[in-house]
Amino acid sequence: MRFSKYFIPTQKENSSDAKIKSHILMIKSGMIKQEASGIYSWLPVGFRILQKIIKVIEKFHELAGVNQILMPTIQSAEIWKKSNRYDTYGKEMLRITDRHKKELLYGPTNEEMITLIAKSFIKSYKNLPRYFYHIQSKFRDEIRPRFGVMRAREFLMKDAYSFDLNKKKGEETYLMFFKLYLKIFRELGIKVIPVRAPAGEIGGNLSHEFHMIVESGESEIYIDESLESMDFNNYSIDDVMSINSYTDEFYNENKITMSLKKLKSIELGHIFLFGDKYSKSFDFFIDGEKEKFLPFMGSYGIGVSRIPAAIIEGSDKKDGVTWPVNVSPFRAIILNLDKKNDLVEEFCNCMYSSFIEDGIDIFYDDRDERPGIKFSDADLLGVPFVIIIGKNYIKKKSVTIINKYSNEEIEISENDAINKIKKLIKLDD
Amino acid sequence: MRFSKYFIPTQKENSSDAKIKSHILMIKSGMIKQEASGIYSWLPVGFRILQKIIKVIEKFHELAGVNQILMPTIQSAEIWKKSNRYDTYGKEMLRITDRHKKELLYGPTNEEMITLIAKSFIKSYKNLPRYFYHIQSKFRDEIRPRFGVMRAREFLMKDAYSFDLNKKKGEETYLMFFKLYLKIFRELGIKVIPVRAPAGEIGGNLSHEFHMIVESGESEIYIDESLESMDFNNYSIDDVMSINSYTDEFYNENKITMSLKKLKSIELGHIFLFGDKYSKSFDFFIDGEKEKFLPFMGSYGIGVSRIPAAIIEGSDKKDGVTWPVNVSPFRAIILNLDKKNDLVEEFCNCMYSSFIEDGIDIFYDDRDERPGIKFSDADLLGVPFVIIIGKNYIKKKSVTIINKYSNEEIEISENDAINKIKKLIKLDD
Repeated sequence: MRFSKYFIPTQKENSSDAKIKSHILMIKSGMIKQEASGIYSWLPVGFRILQKIIKVIEKFHELAGVNQILMPTIQSAEIWKKSNRYDTYGKEMLRITDRHKKELLYGPTNEEMITLIAKSFIKSYKNLPRYFYHIQSKFRDEIRPRFGVMRAREFLMKDAYSFDLNKKKGEETYLMFFKLYLKIFRELGIKVIPVRAPAGEIGGNLSHEFHMIVESGESEIYIDESLESMDFNNYSIDDVMSINSYTDEFYNENKITMSLKKLKSIELGHIFLFGDKYSKSFDFFIDGEKEKFLPFMGSYGIGVSRIPAAIIEGSDKKDGVTWPVNVSPFRAIILNLDKKNDLVEEFCNCMYSSFIEDGIDIFYDDRDERPGIKFSDADLLGVPFVIIIGKNYIKKKSVTIINKYSNEEIEISENDAINKIKKLIKLDD
Repeated sequence: MRFSKYFIPTQKENSSDAKIKSHILMIKSGMIKQEASGIYSWLPVGFRILQKIIKVIEKFHELAGVNQILMPTIQSAEIWKKSNRYDTYGKEMLRITDRHKKELLYGPTNEEMITLIAKSFIKSYKNLPRYFYHIQSKFRDEIRPRFGVMRAREFLMKDAYSFDLNKKKGEETYLMFFKLYLKIFRELGIKVIPVRAPAGEIGGNLSHEFHMIVESGESEIYIDESLESMDFNNYSIDDVMSINSYTDEFYNENKITMSLKKLKSIELGHIFLFGDKYSKSFDFFIDGEKEKFLPFMGSYGIGVSRIPAAIIEGSDKKDGVTWPVNVSPFRAIILNLDKKNDLVEEFCNCMYSSFIEDGIDIFYDDRDERPGIKFSDADLLGVPFVIIIGKNYIKKKSVTIINKYSNEEIEISENDAINKIKKLIKLDD
């Protein structure tokens, strides 16, 4: 992609209502634009980051045998009345009346709908287990939306749902999603810690949240420090159930007295094993080997559109971010620092084409702008590898590449440049 | 993907309220499920088809330099009042009031919002032209939703928007999108014909629709038969403006007397060049070389979620469809017709793994079901290449492949099978 054909409305001034680093940077780097309170458009760079995140989530869900579907944003109020959540959900639910005076709502989550989908089609225990997910806009009418996409009203969520034969199988599935979530966040370059959580209005009695620890977070968790560096691969369901880390709600509700580290954090995922709460509400019985039974269910959410903001909050870089490799809008950026020099121009074009041919996600700043602006925009964009073609190319036919993770600078001679850089930026694959 | 891990709730009975072939087949083959009047869930196969269509649309828009963004589904009523469309849009607009009594609406289209996005960031003529698109859920509260996803209330639309320096540049952009649409539909395996259309409530005076001719269509168009086989590549903007084919609305409004063929059709795309209607409403002036000016705009829509239904309606296959290569949920399906035979099982697994390794989108019917059921499900799925491993494999180590486009059957011996089939099914790339 060429900068000249790409819309990145970077801002020089900070937005007055943006209070936290991620909100400020996302506005400044032209990732998002507010449309109404808690409602945002994702501009090209922002949307590209969102797509990268979605790709990672899709890949891991497909590998785990979770079937992707797409449920609508608008749901009938009727099914929420049946599960008794229509009234309890309160004012956060956006309620709508259509032209025929039918009560609808903008889905804040999909337990009811997915239970009815499964009920329509799953008749026998032989068809279990079944796992579904979708990535769809949700709406929660927050009383005080804030911090940009971090606490928005319309947001993108990945929600998965599982149907199992019994509690034991349900717990195996829950454990599978628990580990899947850790893999997904690792691939996204985010360090999360799983903590026990109350199930809230979703229901059930087994629930974990996945938190990123960061000073600017709105949540508070009580954690056992040893879990921070834990590889949970060998954890059993019992291990998971007895994790010594908690949301503050869980900690207080359960009057836990253990001495634990209290930290600020951002919630990025939430999983629930709620059993037959919804299968019971909808009389969803399945033929078993001997008798009919209610399938055992769970649900598993990731706050997709909150992830870019969380990554920015968690970044060490002052006022900025260097995107993790799998999330970055582009793998590398070429800066043409002397648009007037034909040789520079030619070499930039040649390098750009060669990267594109290899399917490398490269960005080329081909604008007629001062080097200072190009450097600061590249920095604002947070692309991990910056390739500089300018003075040194004219003087001694060399190219400089900066690795923003390590802040290393390497000078490479023209002849080796393209191949060496390709190797260098692929190292992290 | 293995059938045993994939959710395809095929139905034996026809749904009673499905009246047209596409609606019947989409229900029968487990592609969709109705959630409320005119509101559908896309089940795994249906969603997979939708994703294939989206991929084609994205590829061609990226090549044409149209920047992908994501605008929210919920808009503030305020901006629609400013363009005077809040009242004129009528009851098809789903109007919403939030907890703070703010008037919102579920976007039926995005001219207002995109104009304000552009106004926030585009200050100089040097930043033109600019093209944006997004693929997002829309809602139009149809009084009588019908024909499944063909006339749904919640649907997926691709809408693009252009900003140009002046009328001449706007017309060039319009022509670019006109040709882009023909390319996209060709890649999707759909034969469309462009017809002149009235601009309706979007505004402006240049507009075309792209129709697929089919007896079951709800639209009526008057067409010059010679255009059906026309390659529009060399068309100028004047040629496009004087196309002798029309929607019936345009035909009647303009009292056209030319003798033309009248045919039923399905509308799949609609493009508009409406000039400064919205830039004027929002006082969106840009600095020109000499003086400020209102950018010249257009919008360009494709009814994404209607496309699968249209392809089914247009298919020659009685009560069914063979999906075009770029739309098919899978490129080929392997039928294991003797699950009890270890050699068959082993060969199927080996072929399946080899295809997966090559990144070929293969489906493997590994269920313990009768051959009759496997054949009929493969037929229902509409996958273009069916690979049969059963009796002939046991008897003489041979594999049969059926090309559903040509209905050719080829028998291949075990040793060559995997490589030959790979070649065969890639021919259409």
